[in-house]
Amino acid sequence: MNTRQLTELGQQLRVDSVRAADAASSGHPTSSMSAADLMAVLLAHHLRYDFDRPAHPGNDRFILSKGHASPLLYAAYKAAGAIDDAELLTFRELGSRLEGHPTPRRLPWVETATGSLGQGLPVGVGIALSGKRLERTGYRVWVLCGDSELAEGSVWEAAEHAGYEHLDNLTAIVDVNRLGQRGPTRHGHDLDAYARRFQAFGWHTIEIDGHDVDAVDRAYGEAESTSGQPTVILARTLKGKGVAAVEDREGLHGKPLPDAEEAIAELGGVRELRIEVQDPPAARVLHAVAAPGQVELPRYDKGDEVATRDAYGQALTALGGAREDVVAIDGEVGDSTRSEYFAKEYPDRYFECYIAEQQMVAAAVGLAARGWVPYAATFAAFLTRAHDFVRMASISGAGINLVGSHAGVSIGQDGPSQMGLEDLAMFRSVYDSTVLYPCDANQTAKLVAAMAGLDGVRYLRTSRGASPVLYGPDEEFPVGGSKVLRSSGEDRLTLVAAGVTVHEALAAADSLAEAGIRARVIDLYSVKPVDRDTLRQAAEDTGCLLTVEDHREEGGIGDAVLDAFLDGRPVPRLVRLAVRTMPGSASPAEQLHAAGIDAESIATAARLLVEQAVVR
Amino acid sequence: MNTRQLTELGQQLRVDSVRAADAASSGHPTSSMSAADLMAVLLAHHLRYDFDRPAHPGNDRFILSKGHASPLLYAAYKAAGAIDDAELLTFRELGSRLEGHPTPRRLPWVETATGSLGQGLPVGVGIALSGKRLERTGYRVWVLCGDSELAEGSVWEAAEHAGYEHLDNLTAIVDVNRLGQRGPTRHGHDLDAYARRFQAFGWHTIEIDGHDVDAVDRAYGEAESTSGQPTVILARTLKGKGVAAVEDREGLHGKPLPDAEEAIAELGGVRELRIEVQDPPAARVLHAVAAPGQVELPRYDKGDEVATRDAYGQALTALGGAREDVVAIDGEVGDSTRSEYFAKEYPDRYFECYIAEQQMVAAAVGLAARGWVPYAATFAAFLTRAHDFVRMASISGAGINLVGSHAGVSIGQDGPSQMGLEDLAMFRSVYDSTVLYPCDANQTAKLVAAMAGLDGVRYLRTSRGASPVLYGPDEEFPVGGSKVLRSSGEDRLTLVAAGVTVHEALAAADSLAEAGIRARVIDLYSVKPVDRDTLRQAAEDTGCLLTVEDHREEGGIGDAVLDAFLDGRPVPRLVRLAVRTMPGSASPAEQLHAAGIDAESIATAARLLVEQAVVR
Repeated sequence: MNTRQLTELGQQLRVDSVRAADAASSGHPTSSMSAADLMAVLLAHHLRYDFDRPAHPGNDRFILSKGHASPLLYAAYKAAGAIDDAELLTFRELGSRLEGHPTPRRLPWVETATGSLGQGLPVGVGIALSGKRLERTGYRVWVLCGDSELAEGSVWEAAEHAGYEHLDNLTAIVDVNRLGQRGPTRHGHDLDAYARRFQAFGWHTIEIDGHDVDAVDRAYGEAESTSGQPTVILARTLKGKGVAAVEDREGLHGKPLPDAEEAIAELGGVRELRIEVQDPPAARVLHAVAAPGQVELPRYDKGDEVATRDAYGQALTALGGAREDVVAIDGEVGDSTRSEYFAKEYPDRYFECYIAEQQMVAAAVGLAARGWVPYAATFAAFLTRAHDFVRMASISGAGINLVGSHAGVSIGQDGPSQMGLEDLAMFRSVYDSTVLYPCDANQTAKLVAAMAGLDGVRYLRTSRGASPVLYGPDEEFPVGGSKVLRSSGEDRLTLVAAGVTVHEALAAADSLAEAGIRARVIDLYSVKPVDRDTLRQAAEDTGCLLTVEDHREEGGIGDAVLDAFLDGRPVPRLVRLAVRTMPGSASPAEQLHAAGIDAESIATAARLLVEQAVVR
Repeated sequence: MNTRQLTELGQQLRVDSVRAADAASSGHPTSSMSAADLMAVLLAHHLRYDFDRPAHPGNDRFILSKGHASPLLYAAYKAAGAIDDAELLTFRELGSRLEGHPTPRRLPWVETATGSLGQGLPVGVGIALSGKRLERTGYRVWVLCGDSELAEGSVWEAAEHAGYEHLDNLTAIVDVNRLGQRGPTRHGHDLDAYARRFQAFGWHTIEIDGHDVDAVDRAYGEAESTSGQPTVILARTLKGKGVAAVEDREGLHGKPLPDAEEAIAELGGVRELRIEVQDPPAARVLHAVAAPGQVELPRYDKGDEVATRDAYGQALTALGGAREDVVAIDGEVGDSTRSEYFAKEYPDRYFECYIAEQQMVAAAVGLAARGWVPYAATFAAFLTRAHDFVRMASISGAGINLVGSHAGVSIGQDGPSQMGLEDLAMFRSVYDSTVLYPCDANQTAKLVAAMAGLDGVRYLRTSRGASPVLYGPDEEFPVGGSKVLRSSGEDRLTLVAAGVTVHEALAAADSLAEAGIRARVIDLYSVKPVDRDTLRQAAEDTGCLLTVEDHREEGGIGDAVLDAFLDGRPVPRLVRLAVRTMPGSASPAEQLHAAGIDAESIATAARLLVEQAVVR
């Protein structure tokens, strides 16, 4: 296309953005208009993408990091023939695929859900890593960012990672329209300010007028021909470009144009240009991995003392041997999480993200988008750093495995900053998540393997210290199940535990038995989904449940148990033991005791509960 | 002190670090040894601090961002005479003030809890903002960082903020010892790599040999005399410096020295140098603010339609008029959260953090550390970005107010990326937190004022859309209370709601009454702490409770209600209505209906519950 045609296409994208937002009476047309020329040139001349085959391994990957500019994306889909005009005008309607912010749950051409700013580039890094290190099919990753989102630290985690890994298959396009939501950005139209920052992180930078389609065209070409470095194109643009009533004006973010009809006329009216987007260069099989082999999980002998984090590392390595699609990621603590076991065996499939947990989870999301089965690990406490990325991963429907080590007060001396005490609450509240918390090494190994086959975000919680192996290596642990470890016809209450507290609950049950009180003990290794049947049976048989967990009282195992009784049927009596104090430094045993979740505390509470006293 | 004395002091700090970790049999001596000379020179020649008066307004502020190097900090305290040698050797013991990672809960000289890397500099920015813009007492903020933590995006949010605000009262000292926990950092000893990055963000940079005490001394002097820019001192150091068995070696992170006695001998033995730390220059009253006046909160008429976010902005502005210690912070969405109302009235006390939620919460923590009462707001969904900062704030015991707007599916068309659906779970699980969720404007105003006087992390959840004012302006809403909005002697169940669902529950109760079913309605505006007495009374009177919330089912209002029944006493029948689906775009009313939390859904579930059927 020549200059005039590209300009016309840009105007069409503007007009259609205005029309979509006008039909919805909401949305972000002005943020779409600033980037319309950038999008037009990309679509017409540079993107290689088969809209009929979004899974084509040679397809370029495009991410709209400024997800609120979704009208522009949908206008581009229309220009490419992927959707029709009638669908464009369903924007933001109930049931429409064209949501306020794009998600891959509904649209096959969307790589990852955006709308929380600063996430597109980190996920793009994950996809670019796949392209560069694993798939090697030569695709390019294009990420269209806003300027105000460059304030997010996650963008600089991504910039650092991409620069360090020489991801020359990655291009960031920054729509520098100088206006954020509330008003001007820090740096306005100072492209040099952004260029200095990206250059410092090892990027090739190009500064252009984002409304000069020839300059945009040349910049994309320069990005494509740059090797050894990722490229950022810093494009000076105007928000609301092309309509005087809104162009470069404050206070108009996220609002349809005041007079759409007039605006469309000013933009030259509705057009019906149809672009033939370039096909990808070659059709290769999606990263040729061998069919999964039989997984030979590690086997541990009953009674041996093994930390579940060790079992995680060993099981992951075994899984990696049987499945070439399994990849591992860590946040520079692989010696603690035991990801390093995998790293040593399969360095090609290991991704070190250094201390950048947002980038770590984003890399997992990007790798999952390319069909890999990622396991990303750090301390459970530090996964809170990536909470928003986990939240967005669930909106994407990304299949990622996250592993949090060093759970709870039982880590001991390091103190509260290192203790995962809120992680179960965080992961339980994530849509469609699975939350697993094993208490022994064989159970850990089985759950690590089972995670790979689940949907959505899956979380495994591991412990720092060694604990005795309770189960044989052939025992099965279905997700959604539990194990009844003590049971009799005379049980007067049920102790529900998981992870480290299973061992405390067993010791408590033994001491209670000596005092003539029989207690059922349930190992609730599947915290979400929870084993409703077993819990209800226990409630029916014993009348009261005592939960005990190395976690804050809110949102953890106690709450998970209650999920079994929220159907209007009678609820058993309940007591919850959890970490209610702010721990300091102390030994693991001292910590469990101080938090009131050790065997002695459990036995004391159980006696009170059996005596029907109020224990709180 | 001369070169030899400074060097001796550095050796003493090393020896005492080794001794403390040896006594504890855990800890991070090698990470302490790399920074010992940096600390020695700071303590002896540059820090102005009265250890007997940590609240002295002229005191410099020191933050050990690499909190695991706590042995070095405690060794410095000993050298300054703040603690004695016997206490030093209680390091990491149960009950000791000298925790694995320092916290202000236990030690008066610690500004903020560290141990989650990448947080010291952002909090330091908050303190420096207070010093520069509010207190103006001339103190300097010194932050000692590790090199591996520079991978955290939060560090670059802080770098951007400090550079943009010209915080020349802030000095970052980076202990570039080239080794992280697992192994080498990305940039090793390449000081230039770090310098380029900081320079790009507007910092003055100084590169030195961190073991050359004279060079360190000169660098601190240069930082002190640099105006208009923050300074970063990039110091090339060796991990484990001074002991050949560990110096510059991998695999020794977080481990006591293998032979402490030999190491101490190699370091020249135990010393007993005692430093007189410089006094701060002048004793001024802690930021002279007038005594709080009478707060004239906004008053709304019953029946008027007002969004709770509007009431937040108006109440905060009123509070700011009565209390000069109230400050407001926002993440570039003040036009949505309504922080902008405050910003317009009190621009001097308003801090724009742009789209950097980690820095926003860190600024709140830093400002709270200096005695201010900060209110920081963004969309509830985006507060998840700062989860780890909130977690660490609770470990600090920081008194901060966080406000999340745009809660739940009821925001409408923007879709799930913008919906706060996990925020109640996140904030409930935070130690010592308060969680408030008002349903009308007068309630919001009262709660905004009440928050200021509470301990710990306080969270207020606001809604996007307008809702009718239910309460008169003189109604009181004690934290920990609730309001019974419908009640009779014939109530057959209780509807428990908060925020937007209160209005739905009231409509449901009306339609149920028409069908002959009387329902009690409780407005649970205080989600944590929860009003146990009222809930128990309702359970006793009506036998079953139906909770309804615009939040995920895990960790929110349903779980909060259960907190009232976890004492071993009989539990009522319970049903929970919450958001179980992944929303798309739709109108607010359509969203509430699709999620099954509108009046119709409530009435249907209530009828089933009353008929004792299983509804799940």
